[in-house]
Amino acid sequence: MQAIVASTSTVYGSSYLEYLLPELKTHFENTDEVVFIPFARPGGISHEEYTAKASKGLKSCVKKVIGLHEFEDMNKAISNAKAIFVGGGNTFLLVKQLHELDLMTTLKQSIQSGAKYLGTSAGSNICGLTMQTTNDMPIVYPPSFETLGLLNFNLNPHYQDPDSSSTHKGETRETRIKEFQALNPTAVVGLREGSWIKINNSETTLEGELPAVIFEPGKLPYELNPKSYFKF
Amino acid sequence: MQAIVASTSTVYGSSYLEYLLPELKTHFENTDEVVFIPFARPGGISHEEYTAKASKGLKSCVKKVIGLHEFEDMNKAISNAKAIFVGGGNTFLLVKQLHELDLMTTLKQSIQSGAKYLGTSAGSNICGLTMQTTNDMPIVYPPSFETLGLLNFNLNPHYQDPDSSSTHKGETRETRIKEFQALNPTAVVGLREGSWIKINNSETTLEGELPAVIFEPGKLPYELNPKSYFKF
Repeated sequence: MQAIVASTSTVYGSSYLEYLLPELKTHFENTDEVVFIPFARPGGISHEEYTAKASKGLKSCVKKVIGLHEFEDMNKAISNAKAIFVGGGNTFLLVKQLHELDLMTTLKQSIQSGAKYLGTSAGSNICGLTMQTTNDMPIVYPPSFETLGLLNFNLNPHYQDPDSSSTHKGETRETRIKEFQALNPTAVVGLREGSWIKINNSETTLEGELPAVIFEPGKLPYELNPKSYFKF
Repeated sequence: MQAIVASTSTVYGSSYLEYLLPELKTHFENTDEVVFIPFARPGGISHEEYTAKASKGLKSCVKKVIGLHEFEDMNKAISNAKAIFVGGGNTFLLVKQLHELDLMTTLKQSIQSGAKYLGTSAGSNICGLTMQTTNDMPIVYPPSFETLGLLNFNLNPHYQDPDSSSTHKGETRETRIKEFQALNPTAVVGLREGSWIKINNSETTLEGELPAVIFEPGKLPYELNPKSYFKF
């Protein structure tokens, strides 16, 4: 299994996917075609617009990006794909469609059988056991919160540290994750923007320049340094 | 119908419910007993701990606060209640239990029949048509996202304006609400901390010192000033 699971598509001050391009050039080496799943529709943009954006972002790495919505048989398209990119946006919208179109299992099998995977934000959330540590609004009602389970933990992308100077009384990200763990015995990785997880067969490492925050049930949160392995 | 629907239980620099007490003294005048629904469990605290907190917060207004979990017949307790307070925490957890215990309809009927209502945060979210504009994490899977519909719009409590100086690339609150409206023709009120909505029979007004942000489908967001009526 070869997967890049990124906190964000874009870091401040650079263009879409730009910071990931050195990694993606290796990841997608000898890959002519990437199947793009645009279902998360950030900001409500259309599947066509989103696929054009992905195509532009990946143009220095791959020859062709095709939106999954263009295929008559989406299950077959995913099964046959050599590379798959699931873009960010709203995780509820993405997960609803993957379940309703019966694509979740096919997607998992395709990645486990060797399709090179790239996920950003919502497309990374679905690599965890469930989507229950997403930051997104429940704008649609999915038939289930279960996701791919390529990782044996959950992800919180765009992780933000508690701001001790804030006067805002809404929950911090840390509080929300602890509320999740009061009811679910699942580890959660808070992945800061600019970080990504690299799955290279049996090795899963943290990439990028920042540490990640690890929430294991019953333990105090701790930081994991870049280039470390995920072993919990 | 008499309801106070508050963005937050607590504003910066004051204690639990303190800023609302002048309003609550009038609202709960001649009310001996308030039934408190602790199901949203902020930070994972127990029903008992949360009820004790509510009781302390309301002690200058009402003689007795009883947790709903203390009643054998919860439906009857809600039907018979003269006053009901639903506290904040996690909206998914709250809504799941209200549906599974078959309390949503009873709660609506009780409020519409005259039980004085107070909601904060998650307890305010449920006054809208659906809980789909909550900020909370989906830590449990509710059987439905539908809520009380005491208001003919949805709420976004703890509303925060986009921060133009931020380097964070996660979605702003405004972007999330627009994603919701790309798929749902429902107006949304962004209720800033320190603001509350007061339902006094047929009049619904904005209270507190700050304007609210109104998102009507197909319109640019606009501000509604304190003491204005909600008419959309």
